[in-house]
Amino acid sequence: MMVLTKKLKQAWWALLLPLGLSAQEKNLVQYVRPLIGTAKMGHTFPGATVPFGAVQLSPDTDTIPYAVDGKYNGEVYSYCAGYRYADPTIVGFSHTHFSGTGHSDLGDFLIMPTVGKLQMNPGTAAHPETGYRSTYRHEEELAEANYYRVMLDEPKVLAELTTSARVGFHRYTFPQSEQAHMILDLMSGIYNYEDKNVWTVVRVVNDTLVTGYRQTNGWARTRTVYFALTFSKPFKAYGTQNNDKKQVYRGFWRKFDQAKNFPDLAGKQLRMHFDFDTREGEAIQLKFAISPVSMKNALANMQQEIPHWDFDRTKRAGQELWEKELEKIRVNMPDKSDLINFYTAMYHAALMPTVYMDVNGEYKGLDQEIHQADGFTNYTSFSLWDTFRAFHPYLNLINPSRNADMVTSMMKHYEQSVLHMLPIWSHYANDNWCMSGYHSVSVIAEAILKGVYRGDANAALAACIQTANARNYEGIGAYMDLGYVPADISGTAVSNTLEYAYDDWCIAQLAKKLGKAEVYATFSKRASNWKNVYDKHIGFMRPRFSDGTFKKEFDVLKTDGQGFIEGNAWNFSLYVPHDPEGMMANMGGKKRLGRYLDSLFTMHLPDEFFAHTEDITREGIIGNYVHGNEPSHHVAYLYNMVGKPWKAQETVRMILKNQYHNGADGLGGNDDCGQMSAWYIFSALGFYPVSPASGEYWIGSPAVNSAQLTFENGKTLTIKALHQSPKNVYVKKVVLNGKEITINRLKHSDLIAGGELVFQMSARKL
Amino acid sequence: MMVLTKKLKQAWWALLLPLGLSAQEKNLVQYVRPLIGTAKMGHTFPGATVPFGAVQLSPDTDTIPYAVDGKYNGEVYSYCAGYRYADPTIVGFSHTHFSGTGHSDLGDFLIMPTVGKLQMNPGTAAHPETGYRSTYRHEEELAEANYYRVMLDEPKVLAELTTSARVGFHRYTFPQSEQAHMILDLMSGIYNYEDKNVWTVVRVVNDTLVTGYRQTNGWARTRTVYFALTFSKPFKAYGTQNNDKKQVYRGFWRKFDQAKNFPDLAGKQLRMHFDFDTREGEAIQLKFAISPVSMKNALANMQQEIPHWDFDRTKRAGQELWEKELEKIRVNMPDKSDLINFYTAMYHAALMPTVYMDVNGEYKGLDQEIHQADGFTNYTSFSLWDTFRAFHPYLNLINPSRNADMVTSMMKHYEQSVLHMLPIWSHYANDNWCMSGYHSVSVIAEAILKGVYRGDANAALAACIQTANARNYEGIGAYMDLGYVPADISGTAVSNTLEYAYDDWCIAQLAKKLGKAEVYATFSKRASNWKNVYDKHIGFMRPRFSDGTFKKEFDVLKTDGQGFIEGNAWNFSLYVPHDPEGMMANMGGKKRLGRYLDSLFTMHLPDEFFAHTEDITREGIIGNYVHGNEPSHHVAYLYNMVGKPWKAQETVRMILKNQYHNGADGLGGNDDCGQMSAWYIFSALGFYPVSPASGEYWIGSPAVNSAQLTFENGKTLTIKALHQSPKNVYVKKVVLNGKEITINRLKHSDLIAGGELVFQMSARKL
Repeated sequence: MMVLTKKLKQAWWALLLPLGLSAQEKNLVQYVRPLIGTAKMGHTFPGATVPFGAVQLSPDTDTIPYAVDGKYNGEVYSYCAGYRYADPTIVGFSHTHFSGTGHSDLGDFLIMPTVGKLQMNPGTAAHPETGYRSTYRHEEELAEANYYRVMLDEPKVLAELTTSARVGFHRYTFPQSEQAHMILDLMSGIYNYEDKNVWTVVRVVNDTLVTGYRQTNGWARTRTVYFALTFSKPFKAYGTQNNDKKQVYRGFWRKFDQAKNFPDLAGKQLRMHFDFDTREGEAIQLKFAISPVSMKNALANMQQEIPHWDFDRTKRAGQELWEKELEKIRVNMPDKSDLINFYTAMYHAALMPTVYMDVNGEYKGLDQEIHQADGFTNYTSFSLWDTFRAFHPYLNLINPSRNADMVTSMMKHYEQSVLHMLPIWSHYANDNWCMSGYHSVSVIAEAILKGVYRGDANAALAACIQTANARNYEGIGAYMDLGYVPADISGTAVSNTLEYAYDDWCIAQLAKKLGKAEVYATFSKRASNWKNVYDKHIGFMRPRFSDGTFKKEFDVLKTDGQGFIEGNAWNFSLYVPHDPEGMMANMGGKKRLGRYLDSLFTMHLPDEFFAHTEDITREGIIGNYVHGNEPSHHVAYLYNMVGKPWKAQETVRMILKNQYHNGADGLGGNDDCGQMSAWYIFSALGFYPVSPASGEYWIGSPAVNSAQLTFENGKTLTIKALHQSPKNVYVKKVVLNGKEITINRLKHSDLIAGGELVFQMSARKL
Repeated sequence: MMVLTKKLKQAWWALLLPLGLSAQEKNLVQYVRPLIGTAKMGHTFPGATVPFGAVQLSPDTDTIPYAVDGKYNGEVYSYCAGYRYADPTIVGFSHTHFSGTGHSDLGDFLIMPTVGKLQMNPGTAAHPETGYRSTYRHEEELAEANYYRVMLDEPKVLAELTTSARVGFHRYTFPQSEQAHMILDLMSGIYNYEDKNVWTVVRVVNDTLVTGYRQTNGWARTRTVYFALTFSKPFKAYGTQNNDKKQVYRGFWRKFDQAKNFPDLAGKQLRMHFDFDTREGEAIQLKFAISPVSMKNALANMQQEIPHWDFDRTKRAGQELWEKELEKIRVNMPDKSDLINFYTAMYHAALMPTVYMDVNGEYKGLDQEIHQADGFTNYTSFSLWDTFRAFHPYLNLINPSRNADMVTSMMKHYEQSVLHMLPIWSHYANDNWCMSGYHSVSVIAEAILKGVYRGDANAALAACIQTANARNYEGIGAYMDLGYVPADISGTAVSNTLEYAYDDWCIAQLAKKLGKAEVYATFSKRASNWKNVYDKHIGFMRPRFSDGTFKKEFDVLKTDGQGFIEGNAWNFSLYVPHDPEGMMANMGGKKRLGRYLDSLFTMHLPDEFFAHTEDITREGIIGNYVHGNEPSHHVAYLYNMVGKPWKAQETVRMILKNQYHNGADGLGGNDDCGQMSAWYIFSALGFYPVSPASGEYWIGSPAVNSAQLTFENGKTLTIKALHQSPKNVYVKKVVLNGKEITINRLKHSDLIAGGELVFQMSARKL
């Protein structure tokens, strides 16, 4: 659990300042704290963006390389979102950031204002004076939804950022100077390494307009982002630093002096500077639009989204979008700090996936061709291993239209895939194939079963089946043949098997709905494959070889090398969300499962546990329960099965309290593109989608006093948690529209029909 | 002059075999010998293409790197067109080649059939068995217009190539084998070096279709060629060799075995193999389409241009296009060897510039955006320093529509140029800024003055002026200020000045036509700037410094470091094509110029002359006159000015005879994208455009007995050279449509009006 240091407290004081908008204009945005999760493992970014916006304009606090000479640099992990709260300097402000990922990319187009002697390298944190970076203090930093502000110490420049969906809007207030500069660093990037920059093109169209693109080979293998940059004031001169190694053909371009005022640039490692004279207090603004397709589309995005130079108007427009997003759930909670947690969770659960399409509807497909999005918004950055659990269910509840478009985007990905597979972890017209399972099928099945996705369901089912039968992918062939992924061909054979089994169940449910009996039978059978890796002699899921024998040397505590990904046997053995009864029966019944859960939440983990993984820290763990990673996000709710719902209730409340705070280090693990936050929102409302495609929520313990959910169908659901308090965490009774709920589960279809859901809370364990 | 070795003679015997088409179907194509110019300095390619086709499908005989560790490898110069006649092996067949350039690029998508053990590297010429390359013999090689055939010794595969404009069509006849392979080498390229391949993408769509693209950083700085490849027979398996250095992120792609049958590939250095079973004598065909825009466009190009598998039909269609191109000039000449020279020259003068646009009209512009060509065909690869002299005038005579589209292409280049400049040496959406001058303006002014280009003439003039005023380019600023490019800022200050002066004169002529008196005056003044670098004390053009003094140490014979490019003072001092009278007056009158010319053509050059340049050999030189490079291509005609037209006549005939042969080494220098060949065609017809934009031709000595030119306007011009023979090289009388020509010049407008041009030839010097 986090302890606020004195320094942190000072910083937070700044955040609690009035936001300058009246309560009428802005009721809920005031509770959003983008800085939450920027310390330790949260991996969120503090900068400006609109809901699901393509641009995430945010400060980067260092540019350390992902690897040097092919060797991984562990330090880089803290820079997944570019910003590390503990860092003393800001390198600059770049336009694309993931939120909460455990691996990274992006950080495109870093802008930094400087004053005085031109410095064309970032310098070091220890010696910021050796480069263009600047020190800053959290006291002079303010982060709101769609607004970020910081005073840069060294150039004495006030930096302010806001955005529209595809455009970053910068305002830099300078001192008087004849040597004011704007650096555009086209080398800088997140998870950068020597060869990541594949190619860069820059065209200085005139003295206020610059266009270009940057092509990288990173986590996204083949990725290009185009840009158009315009300044509010003409620059008086500009120049380039080309850090490419000597190029054989460079000679032919020496007809010009290419370092100064040369408008036609290309290379792998470019930095640019634009020079200005400034009066004291003069603001130089710049708008920076991006596009997945072309420079001209980037320019069109800019012209359509921000055809003016009114920074505050853009800020306000974005905050209004946020307000609309947040007011879908109006909650009453005991403390302001709870409201901050809640609305910051909603904020974090509306950052990704991001719009990946220009204002004219064009986008780059997985097939590297330009496509026109007809009748839907194309999204990218699907971290599906994380987000199928609670994030997409959350969207199905309060953002179904968006989720339908996300499903359409996934179907387009499938159509464009030469592998004929739905996305695994896709971003920017690539699949990086990160993590395990084929959880697109969960998202798709759920969206169809809940009536959210109204596209061609049979085509969607076909895509799910095709993906689930991709024999060459991650042991699927062996899984189909043997009923489990054998440990001899995969290092994560057990978690793969468990996740495939759940996904197969989703396919079966979809097939059932569509009346495909044979598919239903096939995938129902596959859905029971989890049994094949359960070793009843030890009571854990366990790696099994092709010959049927279990792995002999096996450590149920270790995460590394035991057949699981981001979880140990203790956590992963509970991963049968679609058949918890079957799982419980296998494990020996209610009592045994109850004891197992008690042990999980209370046992003391040895320090070695933390040695071999980058994703888990003490903060993200309760006993041996790992909240900082996703596989056991449903586990607290399993207490409902063992006849002790009160344990589910108190455990959920404990997790809500332990794992979510108002501080920069307020998240116990990577936010993982909104999954951690979606867990918070559901759990704070009192229920959670243990098996997302089931259409059911399991009841926990609401942390709100009351809440009103406004659905797209026009209905509202009022949630009341009567007598709720930090002590009254136990649910005495649940009544939905006057009817008592006795099975500790709620139906999605009942909730979205609207009405009133009343929890009677108590201090008594029931 | 070339001497045919015994080996070469044997090879040529093969070329003289009947071509298998009846005379009726094919009258002139039979005289085309694509192998002419493939030895020594010609730099032509022997493979298949259609007139101005985007695909030049041709064998490459080695893949030596342009440079190693940043150091230039002199050997690579012989591989400008990929093929060197003297080489014993063929590495494979690639799809893009320049014709006759003195620097290079391209060589995209090398295909090679092999049999037996799979070898994924090219091997060496000395040990072809160590790689996929093969020995071959010229006896078993045949090169026609749009058809190339060779028997590969080692795999015992007969390779045949033909094309449509955007598609290469391959036919490989295999022996029986269970190990037949097709190599697709995506690393291979012309003027290749370690980092030239920027990025490559390959998608194996199904078992007969592969798409992808290749992005290079070569002479064209930012260049991407997309492809679609289809096989006539499904491959049974395929695989990849990725020669990239270890990539940091590769780990994430290890979910699949990417070496075998994996369809989704990307990297910098990829090779692919496709495996087949073959019966004895089984032909496997493949069609390989390219596009400057996208893979889907490449596929559309293929589907529209060659929607069948009939190799011979495609060959025939292409040869019919050639026939149409060649029959624009029907000549009678004394020997078959003359016809071969003539029609091979016409062939070589119809290879470049090449179509750079898909069947749907899309192309990539200089601004790296996709554009739609409305109402014109977009062309690329403008080697303007060479081709403004005779090649574009030649097109204005017999191919004005194409030339008009080329001018439109140049204007589009200008519109897309962030430098606001017309092309210098442009190819594939890039300008490599090679060579000197801004000779676009000559081509544009000529095309407008001759009524060929009917676009917006005022816009064209504005583009010419803007280009001529590009102060930052190659000393133009100083040239505008001082009246010459000073030697202190440019190593080629004199040739720059002379070429700018001619180009300025072109602008003046265009301005005059458009009634722009002020522009006319300004550029007429600039057109006389050649006088500023003439040193009357020594009688040569000479480098001059900013302070007005001439360079002291100066060698009028040396090419290197004397202020000229590809020419010495002797040759370049005659480069005032727009004001030869002024030049002659400056040089001291007729007698002095006459003696100068006599010396030029007869003096003996010391061996050192050849030491410092790659473009000139003994073969390309007569005395000190350099025909192998372009600056003095007009010089023989200057004899007309000194009262000795018979010297022009005999000199032209001598050059025709000395510099053009039927052998592989039949060209005395780089063909330079058709310029050398256009010189031949004009000179063989009896006239030459000394000052291209003047609308005049100067009379030489026709080498044809007769000729019929069919113009696009429907008129025909019959040329008769009565009594012409190797001895009767002197022109007694010239009569055009019954009217005697007395000034040794012909007007373009008179010629294209059609009629009869009669030369009375004689053995007497007149």
